[in-house]
Amino acid sequence: MTNLLHIDASPRGERSHTRRLTAEFVGEWQKAYPLDAVTYRDIGRNPIPHVTEDWIAGAFTPPEKRTGPMRAALRLSDELVDEFLTADLIVAGIPFYNFGMPSGFKAYIDQIVRVGRTFSFNPDNKEAPFQPLTFGKRLIAVVSRGDGGYGPGGKNETRNHLDPHLRTAFDFIGVTDVTIVAVENDEHGGTALAESLNAARETLSKFVGSTKLTPCLA
Amino acid sequence: MTNLLHIDASPRGERSHTRRLTAEFVGEWQKAYPLDAVTYRDIGRNPIPHVTEDWIAGAFTPPEKRTGPMRAALRLSDELVDEFLTADLIVAGIPFYNFGMPSGFKAYIDQIVRVGRTFSFNPDNKEAPFQPLTFGKRLIAVVSRGDGGYGPGGKNETRNHLDPHLRTAFDFIGVTDVTIVAVENDEHGGTALAESLNAARETLSKFVGSTKLTPCLA
Repeated sequence: MTNLLHIDASPRGERSHTRRLTAEFVGEWQKAYPLDAVTYRDIGRNPIPHVTEDWIAGAFTPPEKRTGPMRAALRLSDELVDEFLTADLIVAGIPFYNFGMPSGFKAYIDQIVRVGRTFSFNPDNKEAPFQPLTFGKRLIAVVSRGDGGYGPGGKNETRNHLDPHLRTAFDFIGVTDVTIVAVENDEHGGTALAESLNAARETLSKFVGSTKLTPCLA
Repeated sequence: MTNLLHIDASPRGERSHTRRLTAEFVGEWQKAYPLDAVTYRDIGRNPIPHVTEDWIAGAFTPPEKRTGPMRAALRLSDELVDEFLTADLIVAGIPFYNFGMPSGFKAYIDQIVRVGRTFSFNPDNKEAPFQPLTFGKRLIAVVSRGDGGYGPGGKNETRNHLDPHLRTAFDFIGVTDVTIVAVENDEHGGTALAESLNAARETLSKFVGSTKLTPCLA
């Protein structure tokens, strides 16, 4: 059985392309693999707070020595990390805002990148002080961009700070298998948007058809 | 007279290198140019919310047609944009979190990149639909990174998604003069951190000594 974690980061509802596409993907997945478990996390509508000083202090304090405020600051992070660790496949809808991920999705990353839980830190290992603590997960990021040309080889590729950032941050905690499916031209609409949406749908459908994850016994 | 906007994005207080350095910079600046005005915006301690669906709908609706919820959603953004437009020089302390800017600073960017206020959008201009609406500003970003080697030519340069993203996002609204001063090795401490702090201090002091901005009559 695959545990699928479905995340939506768009603050938009009906108007969100990423929401529609992740919902369609999950629907197709459930039809193909009805025994798989799906967990839904809507961070667009239930925003994730920025990390605080208590959060940082708590994360770097052994659990048994944490103060009340530290434990409180880490509560949501603990929940998000538990949920993330359980997932084998994560599908996340992420709009492209101002050349990167929206602050809401960065807040999610800042909450799940946790020392001792999703990565380890050993300052004595000078060569490789940081090691990932998650394995065998796949991430599909469904991205929507207002303008076009931000994909590989496109005229705006060097101004795309979402895709490479996403890959680096997830690689750091051990998620090396990252697929990015992008919709472009939302602000222009018309044929350019429609073609982009169709291509994204096709890629996502193919992914469902061709993929069956090996169960991850954590 | 120069209007200096001083921003701190670190959620940390006493333990923040960026806070200490931006405060020292502003102190030196005020000593050198006592008639200049300084505005302080602490987004680390007074977090900036993520943009919402009402925010997006409101930003793309002419002011006279905005609903109450749209106006409410844009209130803080209006205030931040007004403050930003008044500034000639912005010094911002920004910690490096998970290979990029912290979610709190991305939230600030998402709030100040506003159509019709800091950039314009004309879909009929196919060649250049987006134009910046701010001019003559300078940004100094004081960045602190836990690890090292993220600067130009460093072994981790390709995993630095803060510096290029910051340059692209501010360039989009017309801030092309961006200086990034980085402190590295916070997590390792010792000599590596001390040397990095000293180098950053020296760069910032030189900036005060060598720079006098031409007043910007907006």
